[in-house]
Amino acid sequence: MIKVYGVHGSPFVRKVFIALDIKGAPYEIVRQMPFSGDEEYKKINPLAKVPSITDGDLTIADSKVICRYIENAYPEPALYPAHAADLARADWYEEMGGTYVTELATGIFFQRFMRPFAFKQDPDEELVSKIIDKQLPPVLDYLEEQIPSNGFIFGDFMLADLSIVSPFINASYANYHVDSATWPCVAGLIERVKAVPQVAAVLKKEAEAMGFGK
Amino acid sequence: MIKVYGVHGSPFVRKVFIALDIKGAPYEIVRQMPFSGDEEYKKINPLAKVPSITDGDLTIADSKVICRYIENAYPEPALYPAHAADLARADWYEEMGGTYVTELATGIFFQRFMRPFAFKQDPDEELVSKIIDKQLPPVLDYLEEQIPSNGFIFGDFMLADLSIVSPFINASYANYHVDSATWPCVAGLIERVKAVPQVAAVLKKEAEAMGFGK
Repeated sequence: MIKVYGVHGSPFVRKVFIALDIKGAPYEIVRQMPFSGDEEYKKINPLAKVPSITDGDLTIADSKVICRYIENAYPEPALYPAHAADLARADWYEEMGGTYVTELATGIFFQRFMRPFAFKQDPDEELVSKIIDKQLPPVLDYLEEQIPSNGFIFGDFMLADLSIVSPFINASYANYHVDSATWPCVAGLIERVKAVPQVAAVLKKEAEAMGFGK
Repeated sequence: MIKVYGVHGSPFVRKVFIALDIKGAPYEIVRQMPFSGDEEYKKINPLAKVPSITDGDLTIADSKVICRYIENAYPEPALYPAHAADLARADWYEEMGGTYVTELATGIFFQRFMRPFAFKQDPDEELVSKIIDKQLPPVLDYLEEQIPSNGFIFGDFMLADLSIVSPFINASYANYHVDSATWPCVAGLIERVKAVPQVAAVLKKEAEAMGFGK
């Protein structure tokens, strides 16, 4: 059985849980904080990040790598588009969502959520303003052109949708919400993704795990 | 025809040139420096990184995304293994090679090559020593266990081999060479990859482009 190393709340671990849930694949969660200094975990992932998975003899890390493996191991329902050009676009959205978009969104999350609640420090609001006012708008403008006004990017819900939305879920925990007047397609996609039953179920579990469950 | 935006010398752009050359796919190079502040280029890649490609209506970026697209568009010869578990390992090596390994190796390259030659500054040798003495050894120990003592990781030469080796090529420009006594499998793989004819040809072109061609 697949073992997933990680914790609820990570925008990357979230992708893996949701992908496995949609595929109906059985898995076990091994609670693992990233960058914990745990030497045993570094044998699984020398980068000490989460998520990693093991499946029998196979040990891999990184949510993109893991989700692609899940797609091959459990093809139905498809979470990546079939056509080569669509797949390339989906891969690019997943890459972009997992790098720069996550860096910005988790920057807000770190300052406004982690610093006050985990470290009892004040957020650096100058840094937050720079992200919200200067760095995010060009990215949101770009995404607004890529995302349809209704439905999902490739018709059915896929990992590309989740990869773009996942960092904004973390930003929303820090009370940042994409302005639906300026970026209606992005804001709409975020709501549509959050309404996917398997996404909603994982978000409920992570709200409980992070201590703000209803 | 595919247009590749980038410059010779980037460990990521190198992967795309070599993949296209091995596939025998025609392409045109559009010289593009990363992070140049070029607003037109940001319409192609809002992250302003290289490489990006266009192929007809398709515009994508990131060497992993591009190489996966090239593999689908030009399946022969295969540059990714066919079996799901092997493919997942290959993806993980490509991810790791392109993130942490590149960060460390290009750290050496930036300090010892770019700072003196491009910026007329002294290298930060303390930072270089930290990379060489503390940060790289555990990564090299990990890779040493993954790499065979002969041949390539999955038998034939594939993008996984190139992704691990590519950052060390940049480090070698800054006179860092993986110690073949301590890490014989890694050092051997670097030499074997550099001897692949299409790799050797691209390295020759980049040496000329970077001004140290023979």
